[in-house]
Amino acid sequence: MNKKSSTTELKLTSNERLSLNNKINLYPKKYINFVPEGLQLFTFNSGFKKQLDDLLIVVFDQVVNCKSVYSKTSTPSAPIIWDKKNNKGNVKALVVNSGNANAYTGSKGIQVINEYVDFLCSKIKCKKSEVLVSSTGVIGEIFKSTKIIKNIAKIYKTKNTSLLNAAKSIMTTDTYPKISIQNVKIDNIKFKIYGIAKGSGMIKPNMGTMLAYIFIEISVSKKILERLLKYNLDNTFNAISVDSDTSTSDTLVLFSLNKKKVNLLKNKNLLVLNKAIYKIMHDLSLKVIQDGEGLSKLIKVNVQKSKSKNQAKNIAFSIVDSPLVKTAIAGEDANWGRVIMAIGKSKERIEQNNLKIFFGKNLVCENGKKSKKLNLSKLNRYMKNNTIEITILIQNGKFNHTVYGNDLTYKYIKINADYRS
Amino acid sequence: MNKKSSTTELKLTSNERLSLNNKINLYPKKYINFVPEGLQLFTFNSGFKKQLDDLLIVVFDQVVNCKSVYSKTSTPSAPIIWDKKNNKGNVKALVVNSGNANAYTGSKGIQVINEYVDFLCSKIKCKKSEVLVSSTGVIGEIFKSTKIIKNIAKIYKTKNTSLLNAAKSIMTTDTYPKISIQNVKIDNIKFKIYGIAKGSGMIKPNMGTMLAYIFIEISVSKKILERLLKYNLDNTFNAISVDSDTSTSDTLVLFSLNKKKVNLLKNKNLLVLNKAIYKIMHDLSLKVIQDGEGLSKLIKVNVQKSKSKNQAKNIAFSIVDSPLVKTAIAGEDANWGRVIMAIGKSKERIEQNNLKIFFGKNLVCENGKKSKKLNLSKLNRYMKNNTIEITILIQNGKFNHTVYGNDLTYKYIKINADYRS
Repeated sequence: MNKKSSTTELKLTSNERLSLNNKINLYPKKYINFVPEGLQLFTFNSGFKKQLDDLLIVVFDQVVNCKSVYSKTSTPSAPIIWDKKNNKGNVKALVVNSGNANAYTGSKGIQVINEYVDFLCSKIKCKKSEVLVSSTGVIGEIFKSTKIIKNIAKIYKTKNTSLLNAAKSIMTTDTYPKISIQNVKIDNIKFKIYGIAKGSGMIKPNMGTMLAYIFIEISVSKKILERLLKYNLDNTFNAISVDSDTSTSDTLVLFSLNKKKVNLLKNKNLLVLNKAIYKIMHDLSLKVIQDGEGLSKLIKVNVQKSKSKNQAKNIAFSIVDSPLVKTAIAGEDANWGRVIMAIGKSKERIEQNNLKIFFGKNLVCENGKKSKKLNLSKLNRYMKNNTIEITILIQNGKFNHTVYGNDLTYKYIKINADYRS
Repeated sequence: MNKKSSTTELKLTSNERLSLNNKINLYPKKYINFVPEGLQLFTFNSGFKKQLDDLLIVVFDQVVNCKSVYSKTSTPSAPIIWDKKNNKGNVKALVVNSGNANAYTGSKGIQVINEYVDFLCSKIKCKKSEVLVSSTGVIGEIFKSTKIIKNIAKIYKTKNTSLLNAAKSIMTTDTYPKISIQNVKIDNIKFKIYGIAKGSGMIKPNMGTMLAYIFIEISVSKKILERLLKYNLDNTFNAISVDSDTSTSDTLVLFSLNKKKVNLLKNKNLLVLNKAIYKIMHDLSLKVIQDGEGLSKLIKVNVQKSKSKNQAKNIAFSIVDSPLVKTAIAGEDANWGRVIMAIGKSKERIEQNNLKIFFGKNLVCENGKKSKKLNLSKLNRYMKNNTIEITILIQNGKFNHTVYGNDLTYKYIKINADYRS
């Protein structure tokens, strides 16, 4: 499976979203049925959602290495505070609930985690520091630890489930489960990397997105796990924005399952692994953005020839987060004047007469004004596509950055004005 | 007329917007009929709009002092570039057109301005440096100078018009004209300050808002005009945000009409003038935000006891600009968890356990969790108000800042997805 195929599988038709089952069927059968080895996945309904599973418990066959990144928010959820304090990169189990974020719940929120983690530790015989926890859903509501404890009591009694079901159990406003699988070969040793993610709104990650877990079958040291995250974060999960809102719960974890060994001291091998990690992070982050709340179109913004990475990034997000750019694209209106406006408001110093802006392959402006070659009927046809790609040449340097977002529609308003009612 | 009466006059009923004439009739009759002295106002239709007037020409009886602030955007419109280059604070005439922003029009845009300004200068006998120009409307489209020149030829032949008609002629997506009048008395000398503004979308001014012109009947030096702007900008036009998008055309000008003289060397007198200027800037900026595209509710955010003015400002805008906070308020949902999220994403360092958050007078959270005293039915009733006031005590310092915004509704999407089609 390569990057291209994985990200096109779930392409949505404009103005028409598929039902959950139809979307799942866009995954290849071997994905749908994939049950991982080296860990056991259990899902339950704990009453956070009405009927669907809302609790995922992952128990690893052995204590494995992991490396996490969390939201840089100054109002982190209780699970993030708890993980940062307790976990040192060795993990035997992961507990994730959806439907309640356990955020802004004070010391009571921490106490709830301690209660269900204590129970889990006695059940599977591990240390408290070997458990990771995450929660996603409504902010500011406390819940009872018994909701989770009563289901921890059932693990091993129920059957180990598929990766797809695990991905389903962590969904909130997501309209489909997000999984990605890579087959990798290093030094003739074949292994898999696979992951799950969730997220649809409150998505402008700042060091990880809502929730994403990636499992690598081979042994990888904590130091290398950290480097793999660092290399790939900025161009994957940190390059997407649904609505410019950053969650209190963003969490991304890489796990090394330790089932096989390859020599990662060889630079060539590390590069192969790094590329596979990039692909899986890119694929999962695109699946999140493709499921952006209420979206009808995907927006890809490439800022090129910029004087710094940071300038390219700021300008790209200023465009992809602009409500006026997003609504124009929803209306299939090639209103490139709003792109000019969004570049201007980014506070980055640029020379407006040097800009070149493309919608797809259509050059819309250059030399500080509308391009003379612009074919309006061709441009208007382009705007009917499901993905709108905007490319800006700044022409004051050599740095590029690409970010992904989506349009702003009635449906986003509907989903978020009615969320709790 | 005091601040309170002027800002409540145009209060809109939820989900119901008044027709243009009904809204105008909310102004007192003496406002509607007010024709200024010391300057002449001419309005025309130049074909930017289909039928309504879209061109305002102001000719001052004498060359007067003025001081302007402009958008800090890096993609300023041609009029802003032209004004900054040519005008040195002495002005005999002002030309404003609506319907075309003359932004991103390159050297051609500057040439168009030179053409109509040259014609105006020969017509009214003044220097090029004594003319100010502004344009508002669509970005990236050039227009012919003859559109404006043919109407400049008609001034003096037509009758001087009212302040209200002047305000009407600069509207774009505005649903009503914005005027404000203050009667001031200093050392027993009575005089007026009055102003007009326009703006409804692309509103997060960064040094002025879309277009606003304020006329002071007395003599004020350029230095004092500058101080008056500086003192009042941050708490008026720079404290509002409709959609977090900053225009390419934001312009605010204070004119001193030189009709009367008062002693402004007396500190007491300067304070009276400063207060009157604050009131008129506050009133006009609130009228802009009350006309925010598609709004159903006004949002007022007070950030208090913050460690710096800048921290208070960043947190306040992070809340008022958050799509998730805005949609929750549109849905009359007291989803204070999203306020927590927006505080967190602001990147300001705060201690979440010290926060106190109020919706109106309802304390929703303290000590890092939901308030025990919270009366949910009372809170839900509060959410039905036309203005929702959110107050946050940060409790790490002594600085306060208040900003105004509005909710995000279907109508905003409708207005902006269909803008050009």
